[in-house]
Amino acid sequence: MTAERRLDDLFETHDCRALVVVARSSRDPFLAPFAGSARLGESLVVVPRGASARLGFFTPMERQEAATTGLPLLSPADLDLERWQRDGGGPEVVLAGAVSRALQLAEVPPSRVALAGLMSAGRVQAACELLAKEGWSFVPGEPLVRRLRKRKTPEELESIRAAAAGTTAAFRHLAHLLATTENTNGELFRNGEPLTVGHLRQAVARVLAEHGLEQPERNIIAPAEEGAFPHSSGTDHRVLRPGESLVVDLFPRGRLFADCTRTFCVGPPPEPLARAHREAAAALAAAREEARAGARGWDLQKRVCQLLERAGYPTPISHPGTDRGYVHGLGHGVGFELHELPSFRKEAEGVAGSLEVGDVITLEPGLYEPDEGWAVRLEDLYLVTEDGVETLTPLPLALDPREWPAA
Amino acid sequence: MTAERRLDDLFETHDCRALVVVARSSRDPFLAPFAGSARLGESLVVVPRGASARLGFFTPMERQEAATTGLPLLSPADLDLERWQRDGGGPEVVLAGAVSRALQLAEVPPSRVALAGLMSAGRVQAACELLAKEGWSFVPGEPLVRRLRKRKTPEELESIRAAAAGTTAAFRHLAHLLATTENTNGELFRNGEPLTVGHLRQAVARVLAEHGLEQPERNIIAPAEEGAFPHSSGTDHRVLRPGESLVVDLFPRGRLFADCTRTFCVGPPPEPLARAHREAAAALAAAREEARAGARGWDLQKRVCQLLERAGYPTPISHPGTDRGYVHGLGHGVGFELHELPSFRKEAEGVAGSLEVGDVITLEPGLYEPDEGWAVRLEDLYLVTEDGVETLTPLPLALDPREWPAA
Repeated sequence: MTAERRLDDLFETHDCRALVVVARSSRDPFLAPFAGSARLGESLVVVPRGASARLGFFTPMERQEAATTGLPLLSPADLDLERWQRDGGGPEVVLAGAVSRALQLAEVPPSRVALAGLMSAGRVQAACELLAKEGWSFVPGEPLVRRLRKRKTPEELESIRAAAAGTTAAFRHLAHLLATTENTNGELFRNGEPLTVGHLRQAVARVLAEHGLEQPERNIIAPAEEGAFPHSSGTDHRVLRPGESLVVDLFPRGRLFADCTRTFCVGPPPEPLARAHREAAAALAAAREEARAGARGWDLQKRVCQLLERAGYPTPISHPGTDRGYVHGLGHGVGFELHELPSFRKEAEGVAGSLEVGDVITLEPGLYEPDEGWAVRLEDLYLVTEDGVETLTPLPLALDPREWPAA
Repeated sequence: MTAERRLDDLFETHDCRALVVVARSSRDPFLAPFAGSARLGESLVVVPRGASARLGFFTPMERQEAATTGLPLLSPADLDLERWQRDGGGPEVVLAGAVSRALQLAEVPPSRVALAGLMSAGRVQAACELLAKEGWSFVPGEPLVRRLRKRKTPEELESIRAAAAGTTAAFRHLAHLLATTENTNGELFRNGEPLTVGHLRQAVARVLAEHGLEQPERNIIAPAEEGAFPHSSGTDHRVLRPGESLVVDLFPRGRLFADCTRTFCVGPPPEPLARAHREAAAALAAAREEARAGARGWDLQKRVCQLLERAGYPTPISHPGTDRGYVHGLGHGVGFELHELPSFRKEAEGVAGSLEVGDVITLEPGLYEPDEGWAVRLEDLYLVTEDGVETLTPLPLALDPREWPAA
């Protein structure tokens, strides 16, 4: 398993003997890379340095599910769960007992191990105190799992493609809804009713649900003044208007996430919006052109800043902290979490800040004008390939939904 | 705030000075009771003994969201986040710094505090090690938050009612789909196509999405042999047949969860299934009758076991570990997590194992026959009131969807 081989270097760097992931369910983004499509409740993974991952499950009924991972299994009986439960300690006693037993079965003697996974903080703290008495010590294991998750496996890529397909279907449906509205006294009407953000949000939820996708991080459907603040998700009761910008950013999850943004404007856009849209599209094209294995995220970020500054917009490089112009990062990796490696930040060094074949990333230039109340953001999802990138969200860029091909 | 008053007793029992909750987002079930409908990323809550909760947020842009909670706020500047980040330590340094600063601002001197919330295990462990050097020590805080969440506030109850309304709408739609099928060579056909578990699952996802609900724990749509194992969630490609049982257990979430189960059988049921359905319905009615403030969950469990044993079925009391007859617990509390207090287990003592006014619970008797390949489970969601319980999922119980009133 390449994944484990990649971990070996990290064990060296972090000077530890094993990785231990503890989780409330197999959807935990730190456990999920090991769990495949198995649906498990409380579970753990132990990866000893130089050996295979083992999966421990806490509920006897989950044996069949656990077996689908193909990993060597540690059953509740192997983990002696009944014994820890019988001892009458709290959940931390069970957790400490299970971790200790799993490491022992994996032939890892008490030593320093990397620890990751999302579990109740108080339980983790108390369990680690118990384990420390047996001679275990810990380093944060999240950086190891993040590195492991960076380059996608074929199965992971398949899940991202499926999520991206649902996402593009949702965008085509939204474009259709927006394209079939009428301007009634300065508001967009559809079937005789004013069209709201909430209507679009419901339509998105329905299309994504049909594709088996959910929105654990929700979405952004933000018109005009709301879209002008990248953080605003948009208010449901807001009625949409012709001639205004509408930023739609969808980031649903199947097993893994997808992420894509388009900006719409029904009817002729104000000239500043039209121009910003052209510049954002040009920046996206330029960034896509330079995105390839070996490129550094921060270099792409700087390149887009240069382009947009030359077009007359403030950017974080020319105007640190600006809320006008280009105000945020250019992109991020996408996978079991919405934001993962590679990072496009200046501080990100080495592999963590660079594109590798098999990475899945977004590029999302945007331009914001809070005083005038409009915004543009265009974001595609890409797979880094041997010869550049492949776009996973192939959609029109046109502002006017009536220029989108009929769904 | 009653919530905080309820915490004071718990501080006494657990001998600690404050509760600290650390979270990756305001959806964290341990932070959510404090966050109202605010949408926050990384955040924390500090509740000092005898004082009000304070909310710390980590992203400056989230000030407005955080303010909607009505809690006194600790901004990123208050928490000195920039300083901890500048110090160049890992995320654990930022977390430890923020927690220490929040406790200091809440005038809690280094002492024993209860810790809860879902964060990366390695980060929590490393942060607690740093905090221990400053004189802090920890006890698991999850039991405190679980107790706090037991009786629902009016706003929480409103969210559960909304989730329950979406759930009943999904059931009515499923009953309609099943009622409008035809028996074609022993398979259920609809619009000329065989009807599968996957079709029903897609229909459920669509209706729930329209109600703004998601299914973070998925669902169970399990025909005949699959339903006979309470843990099986049902296979999408399985074609449904007349005369077989179909267990549908939906547990979607808005802000809070709902939970409801019905069992369908299109066409005349085999006699053992019809009889089991009558007995399960009788057990549900009896349990509902005895469910009231002050009742102990375990007593209700025993009562249902007695009834079903008298009707000739094995139960965990007469046949520990049985996989035939009645094989699981009678109910559980429902709220920010799908399973919360009150507990119906024998071990649950005092308030944790008893119904109080304001609790939301399920009752879910079921009967399983893996050898014959059928199952019945009937589950409703209830609010414990001053005079008994109110059913939050008022739906027909009939096995045959054609006996359900048209949607």
